[in-house]
Amino acid sequence: MPIIVQKYGGTSVGDTECIKNVARRIVAEHDAGNQVVAVVSAMGDSTDELLKMAHEIATDPPERELDMLLSTGERVSVALLAMAIHELGRTAISLSGNQAGIQTNTVHMKARITGVETGRLIEELESGKIVLVAGFQGVSPVEDVTTLGRGGSDTTAVALAAALGAKLCEIFTDVDGVYTADPGIVSDARKIDAVSYGEMLEMAATGAEVLMLRSVEYAQKYGVPLHVRSSFTDQPGTWIREEDEKMEKAVVSAVTHTNDESKLTLLRVPDRPGVAATVFGALAAADVNVDTIIQNVSEQGTTDISFTVNQSDLPGAQKALQAIAGNLGVAFLIDNDMGKVSIVGAGMKSYPGVAAKMFGTLASAGVNIEMISTSSIKISCVIKRGQVEKAVRALHQAFNLAKPA
Amino acid sequence: MPIIVQKYGGTSVGDTECIKNVARRIVAEHDAGNQVVAVVSAMGDSTDELLKMAHEIATDPPERELDMLLSTGERVSVALLAMAIHELGRTAISLSGNQAGIQTNTVHMKARITGVETGRLIEELESGKIVLVAGFQGVSPVEDVTTLGRGGSDTTAVALAAALGAKLCEIFTDVDGVYTADPGIVSDARKIDAVSYGEMLEMAATGAEVLMLRSVEYAQKYGVPLHVRSSFTDQPGTWIREEDEKMEKAVVSAVTHTNDESKLTLLRVPDRPGVAATVFGALAAADVNVDTIIQNVSEQGTTDISFTVNQSDLPGAQKALQAIAGNLGVAFLIDNDMGKVSIVGAGMKSYPGVAAKMFGTLASAGVNIEMISTSSIKISCVIKRGQVEKAVRALHQAFNLAKPA
Repeated sequence: MPIIVQKYGGTSVGDTECIKNVARRIVAEHDAGNQVVAVVSAMGDSTDELLKMAHEIATDPPERELDMLLSTGERVSVALLAMAIHELGRTAISLSGNQAGIQTNTVHMKARITGVETGRLIEELESGKIVLVAGFQGVSPVEDVTTLGRGGSDTTAVALAAALGAKLCEIFTDVDGVYTADPGIVSDARKIDAVSYGEMLEMAATGAEVLMLRSVEYAQKYGVPLHVRSSFTDQPGTWIREEDEKMEKAVVSAVTHTNDESKLTLLRVPDRPGVAATVFGALAAADVNVDTIIQNVSEQGTTDISFTVNQSDLPGAQKALQAIAGNLGVAFLIDNDMGKVSIVGAGMKSYPGVAAKMFGTLASAGVNIEMISTSSIKISCVIKRGQVEKAVRALHQAFNLAKPA
Repeated sequence: MPIIVQKYGGTSVGDTECIKNVARRIVAEHDAGNQVVAVVSAMGDSTDELLKMAHEIATDPPERELDMLLSTGERVSVALLAMAIHELGRTAISLSGNQAGIQTNTVHMKARITGVETGRLIEELESGKIVLVAGFQGVSPVEDVTTLGRGGSDTTAVALAAALGAKLCEIFTDVDGVYTADPGIVSDARKIDAVSYGEMLEMAATGAEVLMLRSVEYAQKYGVPLHVRSSFTDQPGTWIREEDEKMEKAVVSAVTHTNDESKLTLLRVPDRPGVAATVFGALAAADVNVDTIIQNVSEQGTTDISFTVNQSDLPGAQKALQAIAGNLGVAFLIDNDMGKVSIVGAGMKSYPGVAAKMFGTLASAGVNIEMISTSSIKISCVIKRGQVEKAVRALHQAFNLAKPA
């Protein structure tokens, strides 16, 4: 019997009525002759409520204890969902991350899955039960509860699908798929039927929020087909799978953007070996994720280095740079007012001129490009935050994304 | 270093401010040179909120899933309490029932503790940590979460104290000890300094709500001294321990009562062997807890049997009796309007005339006794519910319980 793994996000189980709706959906899949494993997030904003209490109590709560606290939210969801399925006359069993065999390392709040012990999962499935797994959590080698960080329930679902050899992994959410651009900005943005893992990775990395990077990486690594869709309709959503012949090879599949970039520029950095390593080593040690990096041509033995970080990392980046700037004899500038617009498409590889068209489109729209970074299937431009929406709309139109390719 | 086990009830951790207060209390005990294990209940009415959701979803939720659901409440409490202790600069670690080694049987919603694996508890204590254990829960042999039923956190605390060889087990609650009668009824009721396990067992069985029967049984079995006290003051509460020479041997230590008894009477039951076994076997099979039983003198080959059950068990009892009444050829009457008043005292054993004094006191107060049951240290009278308060006050005065003995 084929195994299907489904994942339901927090809005899909936002209240008891939503939970009953999800139960009906799962039962339909089960009654259609599948073995169903459903991974569930915490209800609506219950995680925020738990965090609020934690911060009323402690300025800097220990991460192990935050994991103990936050992991309760998903347990509540799976238990209630099991009851709702029972009410529909089917047999379901809820499992914590630990009971489902989700093994992780010991890095609390952002643990990585190191393996899945499928013994109990398979036993429960083979006894005819629908299996419900608390998302976002696992167990460390010292038997402590860990959580997987943002988008953790997606990763749980993909990891289970991989370990169980599932036919597919359906990610149910509050949007009906992946779009050619943010529909809040581009009114004629179009739902994409299918994208490759590679495109989805670039889209997730450049601002598409529907799936977290890690879950896509995991799906790609194990070849798990993903289907992102709405839990409130029966319409098909967006498939994410291996690039194949049948997949439309759009030159550009989507325009993505972010609004929370900060640009830091180090001025007159001595142009000698090891300086960049010192700078970015210090940033890495401070856990700062550096995005785009540009080093200008050197002049009279010095050079300027610019890079962007997420706004939330700015305080950490500033602190790290202040600690080393004196020794290096450099000053730095901060521009906290940046965004980024990107185009992503698997067809880009074989079409020259895409970059030129992007830059020309932005120029015509009066958008100044401050930094550029590229991969084989993506071009990103760092621009002023106030110009992001205009840029997204211009690019979406220039690459004809509104019409089916 | 001596080990002290403390237990904090739901009102003691009702909100984040209360949790900080409990943290200060635990830290003081730790700083005084003790190894501290604190067992914590779910915050205030969080368990009721979880149950409300369960009943919105299912008419008859599976008990295994209720356990998965309800056990999250205590996990939230211990995690938050660990953060509050961390904020005070000490190191604490929260453990679920499973992590704390609380092993139970598989009877969900009212599991019994079958053993305590103290390995991790001792390891954490020896590394200098304050250990916080989620009360009310354990793990079954098939690795499922179980809960221990009403008063379960008290039982957790006593079981841990026994397994760890703790010096004592402090039960912190919202009252400041065990009283000679319900202070809501008897204005000059007095806090008792110490009672024996046996007295406390009888008091718990006859309506004193401060401690559940099972935790007292467990404490008696393993000789764990209990100290029941308020988490809102520093006053000593009530000690519960082995009867010893120093303990005041009051003839009567307390007057207890219940307001929720139902009396059932089977009329003209054939007076032949096996009939009582049939009746009470049917009630046991229906999970009805029968309290006082009276069989009247038989007359012309038949007899009347009366017994009381808790009001909540009445529907089950009725159903069970209806199923067998026809075969036995008996009718039955129900009086749903009953209560019970009891006097408990270890000194009663060696003082004749206590029963006579009790019956005389009730008679003078105009209270009619419907049924009587006794043990060596307790006399209970089933009476009309409307007369319970009057009876409690009369007995409290007659046995001079307001004055220290």
